[in-house]
Amino acid sequence: MSIQRENKRDEVSAAVVSRLPKYYRCLRDFLNNDKLRVSSKELAEAMNTTASQIRQDLSSFGGFGQQGYGYNVKTLYTNISVILGINDTYSAVIIGTDRLGAVLAKESVFSKRGVILRAAFDSRSENIGKEILTDIYVRDLSELENFCKSCVIDIVVMTDYPEYAERLNNCGIKGIWNFTGAQLELKNINEDISVQDVFLGDTLMMLCYKINMKQKEKS
Amino acid sequence: MSIQRENKRDEVSAAVVSRLPKYYRCLRDFLNNDKLRVSSKELAEAMNTTASQIRQDLSSFGGFGQQGYGYNVKTLYTNISVILGINDTYSAVIIGTDRLGAVLAKESVFSKRGVILRAAFDSRSENIGKEILTDIYVRDLSELENFCKSCVIDIVVMTDYPEYAERLNNCGIKGIWNFTGAQLELKNINEDISVQDVFLGDTLMMLCYKINMKQKEKS
Repeated sequence: MSIQRENKRDEVSAAVVSRLPKYYRCLRDFLNNDKLRVSSKELAEAMNTTASQIRQDLSSFGGFGQQGYGYNVKTLYTNISVILGINDTYSAVIIGTDRLGAVLAKESVFSKRGVILRAAFDSRSENIGKEILTDIYVRDLSELENFCKSCVIDIVVMTDYPEYAERLNNCGIKGIWNFTGAQLELKNINEDISVQDVFLGDTLMMLCYKINMKQKEKS
Repeated sequence: MSIQRENKRDEVSAAVVSRLPKYYRCLRDFLNNDKLRVSSKELAEAMNTTASQIRQDLSSFGGFGQQGYGYNVKTLYTNISVILGINDTYSAVIIGTDRLGAVLAKESVFSKRGVILRAAFDSRSENIGKEILTDIYVRDLSELENFCKSCVIDIVVMTDYPEYAERLNNCGIKGIWNFTGAQLELKNINEDISVQDVFLGDTLMMLCYKINMKQKEKS
């Protein structure tokens, strides 16, 4: 088993893939505004990038554009939806129900992406038993592994207890959405499990970096 | 004024820059464990990438490594901290104090990055006046522009009211950290203002994509 799950080649396509959700959102907005055809230039404006980047990105997924016509918005939207698995459904549980966990549970982001929240877990006695969403009462964290196995859970949303990640190796789960702020040790996690980190602090660092760069340009 | 703020060339370095916060975190962990020297191979394992990617990334910032020795952790950490402006301080306000706004206000992410939260704003009468953080009472959204001007605010954390972004053009702010779930129209925003989007749904889409790809590989 290789520790590096992604090589340089994957890295390139990962950059394209990371832009797909934004393509998806832009195209959805076009469709909502009854725009049926779009040029790479228009798409570039909406995506805040260049037309050549657009053509390059989309061609790596089979190139759905047509010279002189541009892209058919609905076809492109449908194709990207399929690539992203937008119409698939997944079951999920949340670990950690303080602050962020409690807020995330109520977000529409799950239902919008076909993710059904089935349960929430915490180890703090004051949280256990609370109804954090209609008919979803916080369970004891010790029940997590059995629950994931018996209820065939796809995704674990971790907002706390990062040390629990390794205990999920044999529960049949397929993905971890990691909000814990801790870097999970991928070498200790089953390769069948995909991990998506969300480090809010990283995006704040990025913003501060951009601000600094602009200040330097001006001075 | 060009609508496209980033061209293809910037895009490449943007990919490197987007990895800097992760380098920063990895190096901080090394330092905390008294590790003073690191090879590109070790750094690659911690970063879940390849040694050649590491060398390429770091060389684009002046190449602080040394053949046969590797990288001096403290030097690299210090250099990346400077690049990211980690030791600078910024003042910030939050817009929107329901759910995510209220949770974010309490997160340590601000103090860790030298960002001082100065005020919070909302237009809902039931939220105005609430103390969402010690000595920070929610103000009426209508006071936002004057507050930003008179208190020299650097960063606006938007968790709601995306339509307010354009009203901030002449308030002297330098950055918007956008959690609204709406794509801000960059062409309507002052070029001096940097925008960092956080689309939580995008990262969930990415996770579902990774899960789908793994299922396909196996079938």
